[in-house]
Amino acid sequence: MKLLVVNGNTTDAITARLAATARGAASPGTEIVAVSAPFGAAVVGTRAEETIAAHAVLEAAARHHAGCAAVVVAISTDAGAAAARELLPIPVVGITEAALLTACALGGGFGFLTFGARAAAWSRELVGRYGLSARMAALEALDAPPAAFADPDGFAEPLLAGVARLVAHGADTVVVAGAAFAGVCKSLQPRAPVPLLDGVTCAVGQAELLVRLGLPKPRAGSYAAVPARPVAGVGAGLGALLKGDT
Amino acid sequence: MKLLVVNGNTTDAITARLAATARGAASPGTEIVAVSAPFGAAVVGTRAEETIAAHAVLEAAARHHAGCAAVVVAISTDAGAAAARELLPIPVVGITEAALLTACALGGGFGFLTFGARAAAWSRELVGRYGLSARMAALEALDAPPAAFADPDGFAEPLLAGVARLVAHGADTVVVAGAAFAGVCKSLQPRAPVPLLDGVTCAVGQAELLVRLGLPKPRAGSYAAVPARPVAGVGAGLGALLKGDT
Amino acid sequence: MKLLVVNGNTTDAITARLAATARGAASPGTEIVAVSAPFGAAVVGTRAEETIAAHAVLEAAARHHAGCAAVVVAISTDAGAAAARELLPIPVVGITEAALLTACALGGGFGFLTFGARAAAWSRELVGRYGLSARMAALEALDAPPAAFADPDGFAEPLLAGVARLVAHGADTVVVAGAAFAGVCKSLQPRAPVPLLDGVTCAVGQAELLVRLGLPKPRAGSYAAVPARPVAGVGAGLGALLKGDT
Amino acid sequence: MKLLVVNGNTTDAITARLAATARGAASPGTEIVAVSAPFGAAVVGTRAEETIAAHAVLEAAARHHAGCAAVVVAISTDAGAAAARELLPIPVVGITEAALLTACALGGGFGFLTFGARAAAWSRELVGRYGLSARMAALEALDAPPAAFADPDGFAEPLLAGVARLVAHGADTVVVAGAAFAGVCKSLQPRAPVPLLDGVTCAVGQAELLVRLGLPKPRAGSYAAVPARPVAGVGAGLGALLKGDT
Amino acid sequence: MKLLVVNGNTTDAITARLAATARGAASPGTEIVAVSAPFGAAVVGTRAEETIAAHAVLEAAARHHAGCAAVVVAISTDAGAAAARELLPIPVVGITEAALLTACALGGGFGFLTFGARAAAWSRELVGRYGLSARMAALEALDAPPAAFADPDGFAEPLLAGVARLVAHGADTVVVAGAAFAGVCKSLQPRAPVPLLDGVTCAVGQAELLVRLGLPKPRAGSYAAVPARPVAGVGAGLGALLKGDT
Amino acid sequence: MKLLVVNGNTTDAITARLAATARGAASPGTEIVAVSAPFGAAVVGTRAEETIAAHAVLEAAARHHAGCAAVVVAISTDAGAAAARELLPIPVVGITEAALLTACALGGGFGFLTFGARAAAWSRELVGRYGLSARMAALEALDAPPAAFADPDGFAEPLLAGVARLVAHGADTVVVAGAAFAGVCKSLQPRAPVPLLDGVTCAVGQAELLVRLGLPKPRAGSYAAVPARPVAGVGAGLGALLKGDT
Repeated sequence: MKLLVVNGNTTDAITARLAATARGAASPGTEIVAVSAPFGAAVVGTRAEETIAAHAVLEAAARHHAGCAAVVVAISTDAGAAAARELLPIPVVGITEAALLTACALGGGFGFLTFGARAAAWSRELVGRYGLSARMAALEALDAPPAAFADPDGFAEPLLAGVARLVAHGADTVVVAGAAFAGVCKSLQPRAPVPLLDGVTCAVGQAELLVRLGLPKPRAGSYAAVPARPVAGVGAGLGALLKGDT
Repeated sequence: MKLLVVNGNTTDAITARLAATARGAASPGTEIVAVSAPFGAAVVGTRAEETIAAHAVLEAAARHHAGCAAVVVAISTDAGAAAARELLPIPVVGITEAALLTACALGGGFGFLTFGARAAAWSRELVGRYGLSARMAALEALDAPPAAFADPDGFAEPLLAGVARLVAHGADTVVVAGAAFAGVCKSLQPRAPVPLLDGVTCAVGQAELLVRLGLPKPRAGSYAAVPARPVAGVGAGLGALLKGDT
Repeated sequence: MKLLVVNGNTTDAITARLAATARGAASPGTEIVAVSAPFGAAVVGTRAEETIAAHAVLEAAARHHAGCAAVVVAISTDAGAAAARELLPIPVVGITEAALLTACALGGGFGFLTFGARAAAWSRELVGRYGLSARMAALEALDAPPAAFADPDGFAEPLLAGVARLVAHGADTVVVAGAAFAGVCKSLQPRAPVPLLDGVTCAVGQAELLVRLGLPKPRAGSYAAVPARPVAGVGAGLGALLKGDT
Repeated sequence: MKLLVVNGNTTDAITARLAATARGAASPGTEIVAVSAPFGAAVVGTRAEETIAAHAVLEAAARHHAGCAAVVVAISTDAGAAAARELLPIPVVGITEAALLTACALGGGFGFLTFGARAAAWSRELVGRYGLSARMAALEALDAPPAAFADPDGFAEPLLAGVARLVAHGADTVVVAGAAFAGVCKSLQPRAPVPLLDGVTCAVGQAELLVRLGLPKPRAGSYAAVPARPVAGVGAGLGALLKGDT
Repeated sequence: MKLLVVNGNTTDAITARLAATARGAASPGTEIVAVSAPFGAAVVGTRAEETIAAHAVLEAAARHHAGCAAVVVAISTDAGAAAARELLPIPVVGITEAALLTACALGGGFGFLTFGARAAAWSRELVGRYGLSARMAALEALDAPPAAFADPDGFAEPLLAGVARLVAHGADTVVVAGAAFAGVCKSLQPRAPVPLLDGVTCAVGQAELLVRLGLPKPRAGSYAAVPARPVAGVGAGLGALLKGDT
Repeated sequence: MKLLVVNGNTTDAITARLAATARGAASPGTEIVAVSAPFGAAVVGTRAEETIAAHAVLEAAARHHAGCAAVVVAISTDAGAAAARELLPIPVVGITEAALLTACALGGGFGFLTFGARAAAWSRELVGRYGLSARMAALEALDAPPAAFADPDGFAEPLLAGVARLVAHGADTVVVAGAAFAGVCKSLQPRAPVPLLDGVTCAVGQAELLVRLGLPKPRAGSYAAVPARPVAGVGAGLGALLKGDT
């Protein structure tokens, strides 16, 4: 099967890293196609940029999903994932949602490790939106300087210290937000006392699972397919899809 | 003061009706400027269209807010309102949020009257996002045919019946979603046993109130002003604002 | 319009300060009439005193509301506000409820700054009663000695430090309980990184807004007007009102 | 031991019936002293009357608790019970709270049977205030005409039908609000498929239990004894107690 | 009346201590019969051991309840209590549930003092299962070495320090998990600022109360008596009871 | 990989059907080993039988897990799944938990279709225990006679009607409890307007996913491996495992 990974940021270097992580997580026979957001912020860091990203994700998903079995929305806020899920005939998985549900499947309470004070608020809102607040043991927003993102391996010790604090607050697992630290988390796992969950890895696995389940697109409810009707001023992908051309 | 009313739909006829309702609600001395979404659906009716609308609302708010004291986001899902609140230096009010908070100020539980089965799910999600689920006595999604929107007065009896059912389920007030039925609700109020809350009217009042309170733009927290940084491929309004040109 | 401000305490000096704050917050053309609780504690500080105050607020509101457009109940516990709302034909606003709803309108989570360990419990209960616990980012009970109330300006630094701790715990706004620190909060606002919300100011604005909305007294639900019937041993205000003499 | 039963209504006939129910529930050696509210409504039926009743309950409890081991507050809203608990050196039990906690002790979800649409809202609020909403399977407000209260036995069939509907909605027990139907519920119990809980009976048992536990009056927290300080314009009981004369 | 106390652990020394505490709490005329779990762990300390204990409690309760008026399940996780409540014709009370409900009856928020980090998670889950999370002010898991259980009096200071921290976090009462520290808590009560609640003591009182209430075994709902049907490979007690032989 | 499917019931015919469903759901290369509960009820239908089943599941898992990559606990109450997850070094998945998390991954609210009034209460409790109550749109307990279990295909119409009612109450997906109707649900899927989720199918997929993720057994938190210590009177599987012999 072919999975489309849509980066909510416009930075191709991030897209390449997402693709590499996704390929590392995919089953044999799963092909990964990764695209950047066609417009918006280089790295989404505000509510406004997230709103733009949601639209960009939708456009990218509309434009590139043909021939794919499922879509992974790869941005820590899951921007546009719910709308894409409604819009497309194939499963759509957000990376944070996938990590949270995997944490639930492992049992107990999860810790949430995010980066920057601003992200703490979004993360709480997102967990609340998924109805999973009662499962969150603790949230910690690490102060990650740009250098940390450029050299994730050099950020290993602060990450481990954050994990330890979350465990001390009752976390049975730790969801590490975003995709920047996927690689280092993998190498740190042996030193961490609980499972570390990287969203891209969880999302690829969950997307493959949903594809294998072969469930139909709903014909009722709030995720049902919608009759095509034109919208103005949108990109080629959405334009075609909403007109019913695809 | 001047209030900017942003219609999340692209239909100018709706914008004109919103402007008329807003003008009817405004205090003497308040001027209403109303604009349509610069791109997106004629009438937003799906999650995908709502995602596009959020971006469009942001673009319109960025483009037209100069000289205004506050912004009213006029679409029943409050699409883009939180992001605009973060982005802009002036208060931003969503019509449904304003109606819900006004209902809370009146005491007890509110009923929520919306239109179409699909909107029921969104509405519950929106109320949950505002942390107000415990205040909702009941929700009812009326089956409103296109004719109802074209001739709201002809839809008076179904509206009153819906209100009555919500009251029977414990509603002390009734929030009527969207703006289509603002006028008829006003004329039906004498026949309704509890206050009927129209979002546009509530939002105009709340926007005026927030302006008068004169609170500063936060410098911390998740709604703080953000440093300008460029984004790619967005409209003139967002482009200028995010570049720090305004 | 004329607004009746009812102090839940019997101390006239507090009433005078409340009136001054209310006048500072009122729109041009709004007249403020302020009265002290006719019986009860000098300064309410226990659950028992609060219970007496609720009755006293009701009596004062019944006695003095004639000719007024709305009532502001000015005590941090909103004692008697819900009952007065049911009883009177005009809008009734509690100062803490008004500040909480204004905080919600500004978006995100609010911090709650109260005074004394005992008040922490009441405040959590009150926020819970309004169904807003999910919106509270953090609560802090400052240890405010009597000197702080006598010289609020001298208490500025502890207040700012409390605000800073609340912001560090995710507060996007800070509700400052009671009315004692309304003035100093106003002067401290430029040094605070998020909006500081004073209940009296918020309540006056919300009362004006509700008056302008012109909604009818409910005829159904739990705040509906009730048929007059006599009660024994109550004050002249309640006696007359409940007998249907007014 | 001697238990003080305080009727929140001023009607002596109700007080006599409460006393009879309490005596029927008391252990051998427990003496029941019952008093009516010293002021307020004949039968509390509105939020305003409930607010007055809370004060009246407090006054009665202050005046009559000397020599008693515990107090039972006998009104379906538990008016004044929390304040009396703080104020007095002995345990205080509300009848609805006692029935709810007994229902919890029996396991599963409880049904709540109350009387009149207005009481439905109060009851939900009360259950919420006790943090027990998640345990309530269903609530039903029976339309009980005055005749039902005058002749409770004649109201047996509607009561049983209400119980049946609550059980169909998942109730494992049924709390019957107030004290009016205590007697008939006892005689109906054999025909009811789940335990029927009468507040007065539960409260007498719980008061006896708390007395036997012999726990000390808290010296910290929000129910700690408070230093005596004068209040103005209150009755002889509260006046003496708050001045520290007792 | 005769109460059966079932220890969920297999250690007879603990059973003896439980019996002593129960006898100290019982009313005159109440006889205590205490039995150890017939199989399982010496001292339950894991989820697996708790699962075994639940079955063992059920077997012991089935085997020994004849002639008893009620059963007290004496293990901090209340293992098997809900199932025994369904199975038996007499009231069944868990010690932690009883302590939590007694804390609720005393008003305000409770603190929960447990022992060992692992128990913190179980305790939160248990409180959540009873729907009482909103009443829990704080939870603290003390690090109690084996020596503490062997010499509870020597652990007095850490216990008092834990109580003080819970009170500082808003606890109006403190539930002390398990039965190991029942004795020392009693002797420490004078030095503690809030009531300390020992589960065995609370459960004996509550069991006596439920017996006195004389409520019938439910014939409907999820705790109704169930038709006897054979199970394979269980102990003599369950075998006989489920076959309908008792 | 080899998956162990543990039936919580002792009926081998059910085990065979579970194995068949699991084999139908498994990926190529996944081998299914299915065992019946070694003791307990033929078909679990009460809380007591469920408690016995939890122990039996644990014993079976301990006895048979060697050489397996993960365990699926196949009983609608997920009896023993959490304890087995703590106990074993490999992933453990409950069928209802897996179906609920899959429903969450599909977005929106799920409907829950269960069988028999008694099961409704358990199901609500189970969903609450997983912290997912906010995601449940509606629950329906169909009255399924024994004939329905014997001839699931003949029960197709009632199942579809139940699904339709859940969808009308806002369900975006429907979890069908237990395993009895897995086959018929599959054949009914084309006639159902939303995805029907069978727990065994979901659990097999999720178990495979967890195995592929290769996460380590936690060394901290409430699911950490526990030091071996003897228990008395348990089966050969648990005895050996808890003694550290495996």
